[in-house]
Amino acid sequence: MRSEADGSMPHDPASLLGRLDTLARCTDGAGVLTRLYLTPAHEAAIRLARGWMQQAGLATRLDAAATLVGRLEGSDPDARTLLIGSHLDTVPDAGRYDGALGILAGLAALERLRDRDIRLPFAVELLAFGDEEGVRFARTLTGSRACAGTLDAALHLASHDAEGITLRDALSAFGCDPDRLGDAAYRPDRVIAYLEPHIEQGPVLEQAALPLGVVTAINAASRFIVTVCGEAGHAGTVPMDSRRDALATAAEMIVATRGAGLAWPGVTATVGQIRAWPGGVNVIAGEVEFSLDLRASTDALRDKACAALFHEWDAITAEHGVTHSIAPGFSASAAPCAEDWQARLERAAIACGLETKRLPSGAGHDAMAMAALCPIAMLFVRCRGGISHNPAESITGQDAELAVDVIVRLLEDLAAEGIR
Amino acid sequence: MRSEADGSMPHDPASLLGRLDTLARCTDGAGVLTRLYLTPAHEAAIRLARGWMQQAGLATRLDAAATLVGRLEGSDPDARTLLIGSHLDTVPDAGRYDGALGILAGLAALERLRDRDIRLPFAVELLAFGDEEGVRFARTLTGSRACAGTLDAALHLASHDAEGITLRDALSAFGCDPDRLGDAAYRPDRVIAYLEPHIEQGPVLEQAALPLGVVTAINAASRFIVTVCGEAGHAGTVPMDSRRDALATAAEMIVATRGAGLAWPGVTATVGQIRAWPGGVNVIAGEVEFSLDLRASTDALRDKACAALFHEWDAITAEHGVTHSIAPGFSASAAPCAEDWQARLERAAIACGLETKRLPSGAGHDAMAMAALCPIAMLFVRCRGGISHNPAESITGQDAELAVDVIVRLLEDLAAEGIR
Repeated sequence: MRSEADGSMPHDPASLLGRLDTLARCTDGAGVLTRLYLTPAHEAAIRLARGWMQQAGLATRLDAAATLVGRLEGSDPDARTLLIGSHLDTVPDAGRYDGALGILAGLAALERLRDRDIRLPFAVELLAFGDEEGVRFARTLTGSRACAGTLDAALHLASHDAEGITLRDALSAFGCDPDRLGDAAYRPDRVIAYLEPHIEQGPVLEQAALPLGVVTAINAASRFIVTVCGEAGHAGTVPMDSRRDALATAAEMIVATRGAGLAWPGVTATVGQIRAWPGGVNVIAGEVEFSLDLRASTDALRDKACAALFHEWDAITAEHGVTHSIAPGFSASAAPCAEDWQARLERAAIACGLETKRLPSGAGHDAMAMAALCPIAMLFVRCRGGISHNPAESITGQDAELAVDVIVRLLEDLAAEGIR
Repeated sequence: MRSEADGSMPHDPASLLGRLDTLARCTDGAGVLTRLYLTPAHEAAIRLARGWMQQAGLATRLDAAATLVGRLEGSDPDARTLLIGSHLDTVPDAGRYDGALGILAGLAALERLRDRDIRLPFAVELLAFGDEEGVRFARTLTGSRACAGTLDAALHLASHDAEGITLRDALSAFGCDPDRLGDAAYRPDRVIAYLEPHIEQGPVLEQAALPLGVVTAINAASRFIVTVCGEAGHAGTVPMDSRRDALATAAEMIVATRGAGLAWPGVTATVGQIRAWPGGVNVIAGEVEFSLDLRASTDALRDKACAALFHEWDAITAEHGVTHSIAPGFSASAAPCAEDWQARLERAAIACGLETKRLPSGAGHDAMAMAALCPIAMLFVRCRGGISHNPAESITGQDAELAVDVIVRLLEDLAAEGIR
């Protein structure tokens, strides 16, 4: 793994980017960053982040969903708590900023206040969630949903990874008590808001030449696992026109998926996973499984685009004489960010001398789940080339520090505003 | 695994179909028949077949390519040797007749002669090859090419499986000496011919209502591994029209592959394997690898169809802004069966009261490699529904016994003809 993403001099290990470099060494992949929920790499990342939180004077705990929580008390014991967070887990072969940046930017802001001997009236809790990417299990957002009190524990605990390990067993093995997931929930009346700083993961801020953006809403998203059943056969002897080839059919469905994404403005449609059985070079595929990730700016648009695509798939599989089934997985409604918090982030940025841009988030975030608990706010940091979920994911140290500046200013403004 | 393929009563364990049922239990897959080259399942199958050969009075040995050889001496010490064989390895999730039938039908014929106290003037060697399907390593026909003396040992030994194990290391671990592959070669002047009985794996004999067929030629075949390189990215944030999606591109290439197979009469074109990286449900695929298996009735037709398809692929990847590379794997020229041996098989069938049909083989066989050594002959056995490379692969016990009848008759005819 490269020691840093942008090829320049190594970052100061104590800096925000230096810490992100260090955290990227917590991986389950050789030479690549792959940190899935409840794996040894996840455990190593928690150990590292916990140490930094404790050095900064935060009291730490691990909740029942393996969310690492670091609490900084406020001066007013009756005040509510402001939540700042993001996630420690990554996609396979990931970049180092998606998720981790938000946690460590929040921590850096609290360290700045401490260095300047500023004590906030309200408490701040830093949340390091572990299951935002949803790669290991079919269900996702386990940590943030538990905090929001909206987790369907039975559904999540029964979901399993590719090795057949259930979330229940994985949590137990990690030292968490799966039967106490309910304890992770915050009381809505004791929470001020949830703020999530995050790399943009898209090209909008770079194209606007702005370091930071204020998120208006998180797009609606749905995931599905599609199974196509044809008939396996010998690649050399079954005539082309009498085949029921599951992979040739799936290929047409994937082409149609891209077509749907291109045809519907505001929609993305992606097939990122595929497997074919039996998988012999000289065997017609009898069965294929692939994923669909479909997102749109509103729930209605997402549902309309899905319905149209599924209709097209029906025609394709019927023509090939194969069958298919579509299993819904993760689904999230569009989540609007609180209007007053968007304005607060903009004012804090202006106070730091920065222009910002409002933009929606095409990616899902833990903030989607937290929206059920309290107002949510998201601050985006410019992403080089719009490249994310990729080891080439990159931000500048300067942009990261500007994000910390704005969070510090926001915290001070909240105190000044009399938020308790 | 079902105890038999056709759902009727269990076969007599001593019968040909009973032995094939027993052999199908030698598998590396739970509940499915998967027996790849140089695996524990392959070793178990050799042990079983060796035992049956020895019971029948054959002297057995394992050659340097892990081909099991069973020799029955003839009465004339100066006579050459007739070779009869096929392969023990299977595709993943295979049927039980492809390969194994030929070896055990040959053995059954020798047992019949022994039971009737008939001794042939020439020796017969039964060959149980181990690498016909070419699933585990990029190269295939290691055993039959070694026997034919045409093996490029350096090229084969360096090829490796999905775990990175080289054929050299796999052979050593199997107890074979990879440096003695040259010793497996037969002297052309000491061999009469190579006969391979085999399940048809296609629908032609069933449609003609005939139990047996005489093969005219084995079709030309080429295999390739295609790698498509795009750019990984976040499924929610990279706009559809600025993606370089390796899987969406590969899907169009697979659709074009099927189109080529349909457009060119006498050609089959199949993609049976596919893998996508990084493989996250919410990540645009940055790289995809898939296989191509293309066969045609002549070498020229195969090469023409390949060139046309590759030209089409160039246009597809260029349009998507991605790159691709095509690595050639196994390739085999069309192999004609010896005209005089086709006539001998027909005469033997007629003597058994059977009408046969001449047909080409769309599937490759060890006989392709053996054609470099000596005249080749192939006897096809009717296949239910044309289904092969599939656990539903099925033949009848009656058809199998008819094949043994014809082989017995052929052996007697050869002796009568004065073949030495």
